[in-house]
Amino acid sequence: MQIGVIGLGRMGGNIVRRLTRAGHSCVVYDADPAPGAALAKDGATAVTSVPAMIEALQAPRTVWVMLPAGKITEETINQLAGLMKPGDAIIDGGNTNFKDDVRRARELAPKGIKYLDVGTSGGVWGLQRGYCLMIGGDTDVVNRLDPIFSALAPGLGSVERTKEREGEKLDPRAEQGYIHAGPVGAGHFVKMIHNGIEYGMMQAFAEGFDIMRNRASTKLPADERYDLNLADVAEVWRRGSVVTSWLLDLTASALAKNQELEGFSGHVEDSGEGRWTIEAAIEEAVPADVLAASLFVRFRSRQDHTFAEKVLSAMRLGFGGHVEAPKK
Amino acid sequence: MQIGVIGLGRMGGNIVRRLTRAGHSCVVYDADPAPGAALAKDGATAVTSVPAMIEALQAPRTVWVMLPAGKITEETINQLAGLMKPGDAIIDGGNTNFKDDVRRARELAPKGIKYLDVGTSGGVWGLQRGYCLMIGGDTDVVNRLDPIFSALAPGLGSVERTKEREGEKLDPRAEQGYIHAGPVGAGHFVKMIHNGIEYGMMQAFAEGFDIMRNRASTKLPADERYDLNLADVAEVWRRGSVVTSWLLDLTASALAKNQELEGFSGHVEDSGEGRWTIEAAIEEAVPADVLAASLFVRFRSRQDHTFAEKVLSAMRLGFGGHVEAPKK
Amino acid sequence: MQIGVIGLGRMGGNIVRRLTRAGHSCVVYDADPAPGAALAKDGATAVTSVPAMIEALQAPRTVWVMLPAGKITEETINQLAGLMKPGDAIIDGGNTNFKDDVRRARELAPKGIKYLDVGTSGGVWGLQRGYCLMIGGDTDVVNRLDPIFSALAPGLGSVERTKEREGEKLDPRAEQGYIHAGPVGAGHFVKMIHNGIEYGMMQAFAEGFDIMRNRASTKLPADERYDLNLADVAEVWRRGSVVTSWLLDLTASALAKNQELEGFSGHVEDSGEGRWTIEAAIEEAVPADVLAASLFVRFRSRQDHTFAEKVLSAMRLGFGGHVEAPKK
Amino acid sequence: MQIGVIGLGRMGGNIVRRLTRAGHSCVVYDADPAPGAALAKDGATAVTSVPAMIEALQAPRTVWVMLPAGKITEETINQLAGLMKPGDAIIDGGNTNFKDDVRRARELAPKGIKYLDVGTSGGVWGLQRGYCLMIGGDTDVVNRLDPIFSALAPGLGSVERTKEREGEKLDPRAEQGYIHAGPVGAGHFVKMIHNGIEYGMMQAFAEGFDIMRNRASTKLPADERYDLNLADVAEVWRRGSVVTSWLLDLTASALAKNQELEGFSGHVEDSGEGRWTIEAAIEEAVPADVLAASLFVRFRSRQDHTFAEKVLSAMRLGFGGHVEAPKK
Repeated sequence: MQIGVIGLGRMGGNIVRRLTRAGHSCVVYDADPAPGAALAKDGATAVTSVPAMIEALQAPRTVWVMLPAGKITEETINQLAGLMKPGDAIIDGGNTNFKDDVRRARELAPKGIKYLDVGTSGGVWGLQRGYCLMIGGDTDVVNRLDPIFSALAPGLGSVERTKEREGEKLDPRAEQGYIHAGPVGAGHFVKMIHNGIEYGMMQAFAEGFDIMRNRASTKLPADERYDLNLADVAEVWRRGSVVTSWLLDLTASALAKNQELEGFSGHVEDSGEGRWTIEAAIEEAVPADVLAASLFVRFRSRQDHTFAEKVLSAMRLGFGGHVEAPKK
Repeated sequence: MQIGVIGLGRMGGNIVRRLTRAGHSCVVYDADPAPGAALAKDGATAVTSVPAMIEALQAPRTVWVMLPAGKITEETINQLAGLMKPGDAIIDGGNTNFKDDVRRARELAPKGIKYLDVGTSGGVWGLQRGYCLMIGGDTDVVNRLDPIFSALAPGLGSVERTKEREGEKLDPRAEQGYIHAGPVGAGHFVKMIHNGIEYGMMQAFAEGFDIMRNRASTKLPADERYDLNLADVAEVWRRGSVVTSWLLDLTASALAKNQELEGFSGHVEDSGEGRWTIEAAIEEAVPADVLAASLFVRFRSRQDHTFAEKVLSAMRLGFGGHVEAPKK
Repeated sequence: MQIGVIGLGRMGGNIVRRLTRAGHSCVVYDADPAPGAALAKDGATAVTSVPAMIEALQAPRTVWVMLPAGKITEETINQLAGLMKPGDAIIDGGNTNFKDDVRRARELAPKGIKYLDVGTSGGVWGLQRGYCLMIGGDTDVVNRLDPIFSALAPGLGSVERTKEREGEKLDPRAEQGYIHAGPVGAGHFVKMIHNGIEYGMMQAFAEGFDIMRNRASTKLPADERYDLNLADVAEVWRRGSVVTSWLLDLTASALAKNQELEGFSGHVEDSGEGRWTIEAAIEEAVPADVLAASLFVRFRSRQDHTFAEKVLSAMRLGFGGHVEAPKK
Repeated sequence: MQIGVIGLGRMGGNIVRRLTRAGHSCVVYDADPAPGAALAKDGATAVTSVPAMIEALQAPRTVWVMLPAGKITEETINQLAGLMKPGDAIIDGGNTNFKDDVRRARELAPKGIKYLDVGTSGGVWGLQRGYCLMIGGDTDVVNRLDPIFSALAPGLGSVERTKEREGEKLDPRAEQGYIHAGPVGAGHFVKMIHNGIEYGMMQAFAEGFDIMRNRASTKLPADERYDLNLADVAEVWRRGSVVTSWLLDLTASALAKNQELEGFSGHVEDSGEGRWTIEAAIEEAVPADVLAASLFVRFRSRQDHTFAEKVLSAMRLGFGGHVEAPKK
C-alpha cells in the first residue's frame, strides 16, 4: 500500500522503516532533508515539499503526519487540507489533544477529506517491538488502511493470549496490538489515558525506590537501616512478582548500569497527555488522585523552590517565630 | 496557686509570665540560668536544679514541663518521677506523641504520681492572646489545677460566641479557650490533630498564592495573564471572605512586608505532629489525602532533588530516549 | 448612584438591599416577579423585563448581573449588549470562568460597552458582613463605580489592621474589603483561587475531625481510644489556636447543634471554581496537590462506588485470589 | 533438603508442592488436618503438632512459618523458639512488619536460633510461576538454605535478561528470582515496598479505566463522548505499549470476562504492607504522594460516607446556605 509520511524524527523514521520492511511504499518528507535521504536508501521515496508529496501519491491519498503536537502539526494539516481531494485521508499519529481532532475532522468534513487520529505507543523500541496503535475515525477509512496498521502493530508475538477473550465478541485486532477505539478523537483519547496511567505507574516505582534508597540513612536506628542493592531488587521483581512490567525492566537496566542514577538531574519533563488526562477526569467528575499527584511531582521537579513553600515559611515565622534553614 | 515550670524557652517563659501576672506563684528552672534570672525579676522564683524545684514546691506539687518533645522531656519526667511523692502531678505541655503519654501515665500510676498532657497552642502570641489548651488526664487533677488552666487560656475575649451552644450540655471551659479532652493522651491527641489541620490549611493557602503568582508568567496568553498584587489580595480576603483566618492575617502581614517573600529559602521544616496525624489516620483507616500531601510537600522542600525524580528520568530515557534538562 | 441588578436570588437580593440602605438607587429585575416586588417595598424600582431596565436607567448605565454562571448569564449579557449604548457597563458578579470574561470583553469592546468581572464573596452573610469584592476591568470604569463597590464591601470593621501595610504603596481599598485586581478576568481569577483555597481549608478541617471522630473506634487499643466531644474541640480552637478561622466558627456552630452531623448525607457538590483552579495550576505547571485532592474527595462523595475500585478488586482477585466483601 | 512448613493455606500448600517436586523433603503441619493429608499424598510428611514437627526434623532444623501476619505467627514462632536447639532456623515467609523481625531476631539470638524473614510474592500463581523471594538474615543461614530458595524461585525462565547486568558485581541470584536483601528485616522491608508499589500501579490503572468508562457519559458534549470497549483497550496495551505489565494482563482478563466488572462490590481491602510503606516513608521524610493516595482510596471504598464529607456539607450550609442532595 502507498502512504505518505511527514515528520521523520525518531518515531516517524522508524514507522517508515517498519512499513517499508512490510512491503509498503512510503513517500517521505521532513523539513530537514537528511532523514529522508537516509530512508530513501532503505527504499522510501523522499520528496522535498508537501505539494510534491501530494503529487507523488495516487488517489485516494493517505498522509501520516508524525510531528510534535501543536503549531507545526496544525499548520501541516492545514497545508495538506488545501492540497488534498475528496476521499484522501490525513492521519495524525502524534500526541494531539483529542478535542483538536474533533475540531479538525469537523473542519475537513465539508471538503470530503477524512481524518484519523492514531495514538502511537512504542517509543524508541517500536521498530523492533512494533507500535501499539489506538485509532479514532470513520470505520470505512480505518478498514481501508488496515494493511498499514497491521504492519505497524506488534502482532500476537510471544505475549501469552488472554484466554478469557475466547468466544467473546471482542475485536481480534486488539490481540494484534491495534484497535479502532471509536469515532474521531477516540484514538488520541485512549492514548492520552495510556500516558496518564504511565505517569502513575512510573511514580509508584519512583516512590518505592526512593523509600528503599533512603533506608540506608544514618538517621534511622541502626537495626532498622538497610543498604539495599536496588539493581538486584529491581531484577528480582522481574520474576514472579506482582509488579512485573516493562517499566520495571527499564528500571532494572538503568540501576544495573548505575545504582545512584548519576547523570540524571532530577528535572522531569511532562507532556500534554498527562495534563489532559486530569482535565478529562475533572470534566467527568472522576477522582484521579494518583494521576494528578504524578503530574504535580514533575512540575515540582523543575523548580528550585516553589513560592508555595515560601508562603509556608512566612506563616511559620508569623505564628511560631520559626526560622527555617537558609538556602544551601 | 503554686506551680513549677521546667523549660523557659519562648513558650515556657511566656507561660510563666502569664501565670505570674494572674497572681500565681511560679518556681522556674532551665538548664540555662539566664531566662530564669529574667523571670525572677518579674516575680518568679528561679531554682538551679530539678531537686531544688521539688524542694521549693509544697505538696501536692505540680510541675509543668515545657521542653522539646523527645529525649530531654523523657529524661526530665523520669527525674521528676524519682523525686515526687504520691499526689504530685506532672504536666507535659510540649508536643509529645499521645502514645508516650499513655505509656508514662501507666508507669507513674504505681507511684501515685499524676500525669497530665496539655496540648498548648499559641506560639509567640500566647502571652498576649492566651494559650489554647487541650488537656488529657484524670478529672480530679484537671479540676484541681483549673486556676492554672483558666489563667493561661485566652478567655471569652472579643470572639463572638457560638449561639448554637446555648442550652446544650457542652463544656463551658471550651468558650474560655481550654478543654478537658479526655483521659491521658487525649490532650496531645487533639493538639496533634490541630497541627495536622494547620498543615493542610497552610498548604491550601500556599498553593493558591503560588497559582496567583505564576499567573504573571509570560508563557501564558497575554490576555489571560495577571500581575496580581498578592499583598492586596491577602488583605481583601481578610474582610467578608470565606477564607478569613489567622493564617490569612499572617500571610497578609508577610506579603505586605515583601511581596516576593524574599529571604525565605523555601526549605520548610515539619514537626512530629504532622507525621503522627497521618499515622493515626492510617491506624483508623481514615482517608487523609490533604493532610498527607501537606506533609510530603515539606519533605520535598528540603531536598534539591529526590531519587524518585531520577528514577522517572531513567525510565523516560529507557522507553522514549528522552533526555532531561541538565542540572542548573 | 443608580444601578440595575438582574438576578434577585439570595446573593442578588441582598446586594440590592445593601446598596439601597447605602442610599443607592436600584432598578431590579428577575424572571420571577416575587423577589422584585419584595425589594420594591424596601425602596428598589422593580421592572418586568431587561429592555424595561435599560429604559429605566440613565446613561451611562450600569447593570450588575447576578445569575448562576453559564448559559443564563451568557444570554443575559448578550441581551444587554444588544440594548446598551457606548459608555454603558455590564458587571458580571457571578462565578464566571475568567476566560469567558476575557472573551466577552473582547466581543463588547467594538460596541463601546464596558465589562467588569466582580468576584463576590460573602454568601448568606453578605448583607450583614458586607461582600468581599475582587474586581477586574478597566481602571476608569472601576473608579467611576467606586461608590457601588465601597457600599457593598465590608469596610474596615472590627478586623485588626495589618500594621505591615503602613507606609507601603498598597491599595487602600483592600482594607475596606474590595480590590481592583487587574484587567478583565482578574477579578474572577482571584475569586476562583479564593474558592480553590476554600476547598483545601475545608478538607483540612474535614479530615482532622474525621480522624478525631474515628478515635473512638473499638478496634483501637482501649488506652489509645478517645471519645472526644467534637463541639468542644471546635469551640476551644476558636480562641488562641493557629486554626482560628471563619470556617472553624461555622464548624463549631454545626457541631454544637449536632455532634454527629445527622441530616447531612455526605454527598458534597462542587462548583466550577474548584475545577478551574486545578486547570489554572496545570496551565502554569504549579503543583496543587491539596487543592486537587479536595476536589476529588467531592467527586468521590457523590458515587456509591467508583469503577476504579472495582478494577482494583478485579486485579486482587486475579493475582491473589482475594475475594472482597460483598455490597452491603 | 529437609524442611518443616507450618501453615498450609493457599501459599503454604503450594510452597510445599513446589519444594516436593524439586526433591526436597517437607514435614508439614496445619491446625486443620485436611491440607496436610492432601500434601501427604504428594509426598510430604504430615504431622499433628508443632512438637511432633520438631521431633521429625533432623538438626539443624529449618521451619518455614507461612501464616497470616500477626498474633498467630507470633505465637507459633514463640512455640518453636521454646522447642528448638541452637543452630536451628525459623523462616517467617508471611507478611510481617520488618520491625517485628528485628525484635524477634534479637530475642532469639541468645538461644542460638537463627531467624530469616522471607518476603514471598507469587500469590495463587506461585506454584506454576515460582515465588519471587526477598530474604533477610545472616549470610551463613541464607547460604545454607540456598537449595530451598532456588527451588521456590522462578528461575531465569523466559524473561529476557537485563543486559546491563553483564560484568557488573551484582548478585546472580536476582536473575533467578530471589535475593539476599540484607540483615534481618530487609526481606520483609523489600517485600513491603513491593506491595506499596503494587498499590500505586493498581490505582494508576484503576483511575485510567475509570476515566475511560465515564467518557460515555451523556453529560459530555456528544462529539467528545466515547463508548470505549475497555476489554479491547486493555488487550491492545498488552502489546508494544509502555504500560505492559502483569497487572494489565490481569485487568485484560477480568474485562474480557465482564466489561462492567459486575459482581465486584467496590469494597477494597488493604493489608499491612501498604500502611507500613507510608510509615516508612514518613520515618525517612520521603514524599510518597501516590502510594499514600492509593491507600486512602481503599479506606474510602469501605465506607458509605466519611464523617469528613458531612463536615464539608455542614460548612457549605453555614457559609452559603447550600443544601446538599439527600441520601439516595
